[in-house]
Order: sequence, then structure tokens, then C-alpha cells
Amino acid sequence: MSGTVDELASSARRDGTLVERVMRAIRHQISSRSLAPGGKLPSIRAVAQTMQVSKSTVVEAYDRLAAEGVIRSRPGSGFYSAAPPAPLSLTELAPRLDRAIDPFWVSRQSLEAGKDVLKPGCGWLPGSWMPGDEIRRALRGLARTREEAGLTDYGTPLGLAPLRQFLSRRLAEQGLQAAPDRILLTDSGTQAIDLVCRLLIQPGDAVLVDDPCYFNFLALLRAHQVTVIGVPQTPAGPDLSQFEQALAAHRPRLYITNSGLHNPTGAALSGVTAHRLLKLAERYALTVVEDDIFADFETEQAPRLAALDGLERVVRIGSFSKTLSASFRCGYIAARPDWIDKLTDIRIATGFSSSRLSEELVFAVLGSSGYRKYLEGLRARLAASMASIVPRLQALGIHPWIVPKAGMLLWCRLPDGLDAAEVARHALNADVVLAPGNVFSVSQAASGFMRFNVAQCMDERIFTVLENALRLAANETGKGKP
Amino acid sequence: MSGTVDELASSARRDGTLVERVMRAIRHQISSRSLAPGGKLPSIRAVAQTMQVSKSTVVEAYDRLAAEGVIRSRPGSGFYSAAPPAPLSLTELAPRLDRAIDPFWVSRQSLEAGKDVLKPGCGWLPGSWMPGDEIRRALRGLARTREEAGLTDYGTPLGLAPLRQFLSRRLAEQGLQAAPDRILLTDSGTQAIDLVCRLLIQPGDAVLVDDPCYFNFLALLRAHQVTVIGVPQTPAGPDLSQFEQALAAHRPRLYITNSGLHNPTGAALSGVTAHRLLKLAERYALTVVEDDIFADFETEQAPRLAALDGLERVVRIGSFSKTLSASFRCGYIAARPDWIDKLTDIRIATGFSSSRLSEELVFAVLGSSGYRKYLEGLRARLAASMASIVPRLQALGIHPWIVPKAGMLLWCRLPDGLDAAEVARHALNADVVLAPGNVFSVSQAASGFMRFNVAQCMDERIFTVLENALRLAANETGKGKP
Repeated sequence: MSGTVDELASSARRDGTLVERVMRAIRHQISSRSLAPGGKLPSIRAVAQTMQVSKSTVVEAYDRLAAEGVIRSRPGSGFYSAAPPAPLSLTELAPRLDRAIDPFWVSRQSLEAGKDVLKPGCGWLPGSWMPGDEIRRALRGLARTREEAGLTDYGTPLGLAPLRQFLSRRLAEQGLQAAPDRILLTDSGTQAIDLVCRLLIQPGDAVLVDDPCYFNFLALLRAHQVTVIGVPQTPAGPDLSQFEQALAAHRPRLYITNSGLHNPTGAALSGVTAHRLLKLAERYALTVVEDDIFADFETEQAPRLAALDGLERVVRIGSFSKTLSASFRCGYIAARPDWIDKLTDIRIATGFSSSRLSEELVFAVLGSSGYRKYLEGLRARLAASMASIVPRLQALGIHPWIVPKAGMLLWCRLPDGLDAAEVARHALNADVVLAPGNVFSVSQAASGFMRFNVAQCMDERIFTVLENALRLAANETGKGKP
Repeated sequence: MSGTVDELASSARRDGTLVERVMRAIRHQISSRSLAPGGKLPSIRAVAQTMQVSKSTVVEAYDRLAAEGVIRSRPGSGFYSAAPPAPLSLTELAPRLDRAIDPFWVSRQSLEAGKDVLKPGCGWLPGSWMPGDEIRRALRGLARTREEAGLTDYGTPLGLAPLRQFLSRRLAEQGLQAAPDRILLTDSGTQAIDLVCRLLIQPGDAVLVDDPCYFNFLALLRAHQVTVIGVPQTPAGPDLSQFEQALAAHRPRLYITNSGLHNPTGAALSGVTAHRLLKLAERYALTVVEDDIFADFETEQAPRLAALDGLERVVRIGSFSKTLSASFRCGYIAARPDWIDKLTDIRIATGFSSSRLSEELVFAVLGSSGYRKYLEGLRARLAASMASIVPRLQALGIHPWIVPKAGMLLWCRLPDGLDAAEVARHALNADVVLAPGNVFSVSQAASGFMRFNVAQCMDERIFTVLENALRLAANETGKGKP
């Protein structure tokens, strides 16, 4: 345990500061039970002697352990180990096989997954694909700021003005005129849609979505207690004749969709579909929420409802979770000024303020040239992954509905009428999270489909597990036959 | 413009990097209109020559300006200045005098206030009082992490496990046993209460609050379309006979309160009131939401409903906005396990994920010894401010309802039946945001009261403006008499 100053210094460089070294040693004594729960810690002088550090180092280490709640100080008596923390429950440590396959299935399985779980069904990029260096640079920049307000103050009601100005310019490049005060920053794209729902719909209203659609739209609309009507999706957008029938029959207040790249199908809206859809929306007094979350994946720009409509009856939603970071939350709403004003009040009432620090970070990264270069590289990398994963899936009899122009999502039909939920359960047993079709489907007509994320398919084990899960599901289907 | 390498290097040290210097020069040319909107920028070679920097420096500066949308590249033709951004609207730049004095009044006036506006009415500490150095250290720590996931991934459904373990230990110190999996991290204390409301109440339900109470409870409950019933607050908690009458008459589903330090009055719940209140809650099947947001201001611990009740019919809410930072958002809910499970689903549906980065930062700061020392200093500083501000207000005829044991809030009666809303309007005219009593009051019986934040009263101008506003309001009252 003892050593020369040089050895200690070199050990400190290797293992963090001396204070952290002392903290680790005490933690080890507690976790190994060589110090009983509630037991008295050695004196500061004794630790300083044993570990050959100064007493002030030990004082600092004890102080920090006390701040963490690992040990407690009793004035005049010394330091004692605290009671051990309650353990995490098993449900937190293992995938939940018992959970119903509902709109929450993929979210919770993906979000809860430990490090060893593979997630070809999840809807985001692996961390190693994301712009970590740009984020680190932005964090260091913020740490250097002399302005205390950016680090500690609430955000302004609409959110950081320079970021709104930036978004306003970027939307203008897409042909969408939205002044910065027609843009409200939110904590996420999901929160943005939730706020619009809080403003525009009441329990019992009808709302249109694509079938299939992003499963969390279904979870969100369930929370709003509305009737959800699905319209079959085609490779060019929703099926317009069924769209019109649904408008006439249900008089929905809202239609919520992804354009650009559609989730889960990867389809892109065609110009003619967009134009006709907006004419229908006008005839039936429908408001459209266009969630443009995958915009930065596009290699060529598909038509946008918000740009054609000029934010009259279309509300534009966006976020930065997919290409910048999902760890600091930031989304936006661009809409009519009177709606922005009311949405701002609802946001204050239900969340008080967005995160100024997140907005500062997003602004710093978006404005960097490194981010633009990263996006170019990302698009190329995704195109290459798409090209390599499609034949791998086809070899297992899994066929893409379409091959999308860009992005990471691939909507596929399973072989031989296999039930995707069964396949997903078998795969989860082997620590692989898949996305069975019906979690995306209002009509529950997608049991033979599955969504894959090509960026999350880089591990060989996925294809072994998938092949095995397909075989197990096929055997069951066989057994189930009369 | 030209200079030696040394001069340039020194100028770079003074003014940021060379790239930033070039960017500033171009921005200046655009904002000063020496370069017209849409006009062509000088060539890279020309700028490099004029500013005595390398061409790659200019390329990088142009790239970054293009990424920001300030200039555009036309391949083969060069760079052009972009159209100017749409200006911020006037409503963003000036306090809104026309706004109705409703529960949003203080929030929006305080959040929208520019730098020169003084805010003795707002409910948070000045940025300079907050633990900026600890936050900077936490930011630098995060920037050093090699783990990409912490910077870019979604959070887990319940939120960062080490932070929940930390909170579990801290709650145990208050006598509240809540295992880490009974704690759900949220984006804010406000979001936490909103989620509980989404789980437990329906439009048309009755909900109890204190009168006066934190104004945003009123805004939040309005968004939930419930009937709000106020119970008069006493210095020891709610008036229990009126509390019981309200329970019998309205059968409310929820009671939402701050204990510890009450907002706006600074009152602390007494042990006997807490015990009797919980017996009433049991008899009338009432759920209590206890928002403990001011816990860290306390110098001696007041009774807590959640600790007495053991999280049976009390839901504990908390956040770190008041003493750590409001710029990165993080709150929590501790509640019954079955409720935590349902609340987690609602949170995924309506916001998908909390901010992992915010949780990492909060955990890093909370666990530091510097934060504990900062809190001790803060409590002493607030006590001293309280002692100095009370007589200043009394000298103007403004008298505290009680002098709170701790914290920053002071609930005061104005002289001579003056209308606090009138006084607040006059003060706002002079760029001082006050908090008139009725924004806190369901019954609108607090027109003669005002909430002050002693930490925001350090500027002499506040007392001059206040005196003048009182005189103007008194004159109007005089004129109004027959």
C-alpha cells in the first residue's frame, strides 16, 4: 500500500487523483464487508499513514463519500459507513419477457437494455456513430463561459434565441418561412407533439395516423384518450382514397405523420400526394402535425407538408435526437403565432422551462463545421450499411417492403407468415431486441412485419439469433396446426 | 489589419481563435451592411491576404459561417451572404404590460425579462449565487468521458441508476424509505406533478391546494381542466377544519402542497398538523402530492408528509432547480411501485426519455463536497439577506406575514389596502418584476399581499421603484374614492 512519491504520483495519473484513490479504497472496504454496515471508519490520521497521502487528502475523500451518502459523519465521534443502499430490483437488471407486446414494448426493451443486449429493433444510432467529439468540444466551451446565467438560469419562454434564429434560417432553406418567434423550443420531439395534442384535442376526438406509424404516436394518443384511426401507408405517403374516407367518416381533428423519411417504412412523401393531402386537409378542416425528426438523414429533399402549406394548417415538429444527441433533450415546434403563444403557456404550466443548457449545447454543435462533415459521413455510412444488411436479411427470407432512399430504418416482411411477436420473444431470450410489426400498427395487421435498424445490425450474433428465432417460431407455428 | 505572427497570436489569445476572428470580421461586414444581403463575399485568397491568416483558416471560417446559415456556398461560384434573419418580435424584447395578471404573469414576466430587469418577485436565486464552479467542473468531467453513451444515448426509463441510489439514501436520512426503483427521474419538478396528475386525475375532478399556493400549481391544474379548491394556509400548514370541510364537500382526488418551506408564505408544516392531515387523507381516500422543492434551504428539518406516511398515499416530488441549476432540468417522483410503473409508461409516451446528460451533471454536482459547502454558505447568506431586507420593506409599510425560518421567500402585506396588481404594473413600467398576491390565490383574496425574494432584493433601485409604485397606486386608489 505504501510507495514513493513518484510511485504514488504515477498511480494517481493511472487511477485518477489521490482523493479518488482513497475513496475507492474505502468503498472497497465497505463493499467487500471488511467494514460492516454502520461500522466505524479508520481515523483520518491512520488512513493518511497507511496510504501515504496527506491528511487533507483523506479529509476531502471522507467529505466526498459523506456527500455521496456512502459514509456518515458523527460530530465528535468520527466517520461511520452508511447502511447499504437498497438493491435495484430484478426488473431493472433483466429484460422483461412477461411484458405485453404493446406500443411500449420496443421503447422499454430498448431503453432498459443492458450493455450486452443487441438492439437491431431500436430506433436510434449506436453511441459510437454519434458526434461525440463535437459534443465534448461544446461541453468544454460551456465550461469556459463566464456567464453564470447559461449554467444555472431557467430558459426563456420560447427557448434560446440564437438557436431559434438558426432554425428559422434552416427552415427557410427548406422553403418554410418561420420567423424565430414562431418557433417554440421544447424538451423533445415527443414533448412537442404532446403539447400540440394538449392544445388541439380533447378526450374522445378522432386522430389519424399512418398504418404502420411510429409506435410512440400510439402510446401518446392513448394517453390523450382519443380514437386513433389508421390509414394504410404506401411508398409515396398515405393511401389518399382511404385517407379521404377516414376524414369523411370520423372528422378527425389531427393527422400526425413523419414526412421526409417515414418511420417505420422509410417511405418518402411524393409531391403529388403532399399537394392532394393538403387539399383534403383544407376541405375537412384537418390540422396536420408533421414530425420531421429524420430530416438530417436525407440525401435528397422530399416534399414537406409544412413548406407547401406555409404553416397555416400544418404544425412542424423536429428534434436533434437522431443525429446529434438523445442525451440532452431538445425539440421544436414551428406553428401559427397564436398557437405558439398558447403552446408556450401550456409548456410553462406543465414543465415550466426548457433546458437552457441543452439548447446551448445543441446550438454549439449544430453551428460547427465538424457537425456538417459528420452528417455527410453518416449518410454515406448508412447507405453502405443498408447495402450490406439488405442481402443478409434476404438470405434469411426477410424481405424489405421498399429499400428506402436514406436513413437507418428498414420495414421487412418475415418468411412464411411467421408471427413477428413470437420471433421477437425468442430473440429477447437471447438478449436481442427486435421491433415486431404490430407495435407500429393500429389495425394490428402487421404481425408478419418487422422493423430493422441497419446501423444496429453490425454484430454477427444478430443474424445467428435471428435465424434461430425464426426456426423456433416456425416450429411453434407447425405445432399449432391441426 | 496586418501584423506580425506574434501580434496575430496575441490577438488570437485575446479574441479567441483566428478562425473566430475571421468569422467576426465577416459577420461585422454583413451586420454593418458593408456587404449587402445576398452579396458575394471576398474570395478566400483575398481575405487570407488582408487578415494575414492562412487560406485554410478562412476556409474553416467560411465553412462555419455556412453551417450557421450566415453565408451560403454556391458551388463553382463562391460564397454569398444569406438573407438577414427575421427580427425577433417586439413582444420578445420588452416586458408585456398588456398581459392579464393571471397564474402565468410572474412566470412569463420573470422568464422573459432582459438583463436590465430586476426581479424581486421571481422564485429563484440570482445566477451569481448558484454553484457555477461545481457545474463547470462537472461539465469538464463529462467532456473527458470516454463512454459515448453518456453523451448521446437516451436515458433509461427510470433515469440514471446512481442518481436514484443517491436520492434513495438521502430520502432515508429524512426517514423516508424509498428503494431506487421506487424513484422515477423526470425533466423537472413541474413535469413530475404533471405526470402524477395525468395518472390520477380526470377533467372535472376536484383538487385541493393551499391558498395562497405556488402559482404554477394553478396554471398546471387549469391545463388539466379540474375544479381547484383552496384551503387557507396558516403558519403551521393548511387550516385543518377548512381542510376537512373541503374534503367532505368536494371529495377531491388530490391535494398538492409544498411542505418543508411553503411557497409563497415560507411557512413550515407542524408535526401535529402533518399527522392530523394524513388521518383526514386516509378517511377521505385523498392522495397527497408533496413537492419538496425547497428542501435544501432548510436549516432545521420540518416534518414531511411522505416520511410520516411511508409513501402509501403521499407522492414525493423534488427537483434541483432552486439550489443546483435550473438550466439543466431534473426532478423526481418517489411513489408506490405500481404508480411508478404506470408513470414511467406515461413519461415514455409523452416525452420518451429524460435527459441522461442532465442527470449525469446533477449527480456529479450533488456528490461533490464543494456542493455541500456551497449549501452551508447559501443558507447563511439567505439568513443575512432576510435579516437585512425585512426592515427595508417594513420601512415602506410592507409587513411580513411571518418571518420564515429559512429560504428566500417572504410573503408580505402591503400598506393601506393597496392593490398589489396595480403596484406590480407600475413597477413593471420601471423594469422591476414583482409578484402580486392574487397570482398565488384561488379565492383571489390576496390582492393586498406580495411575495418577495430576498436574494433578488440586493439592488437599491428596487426600493426606489417600489416606493414610487406604492405612491402611484395610492394616488389612484385616492382618485377612485367618491
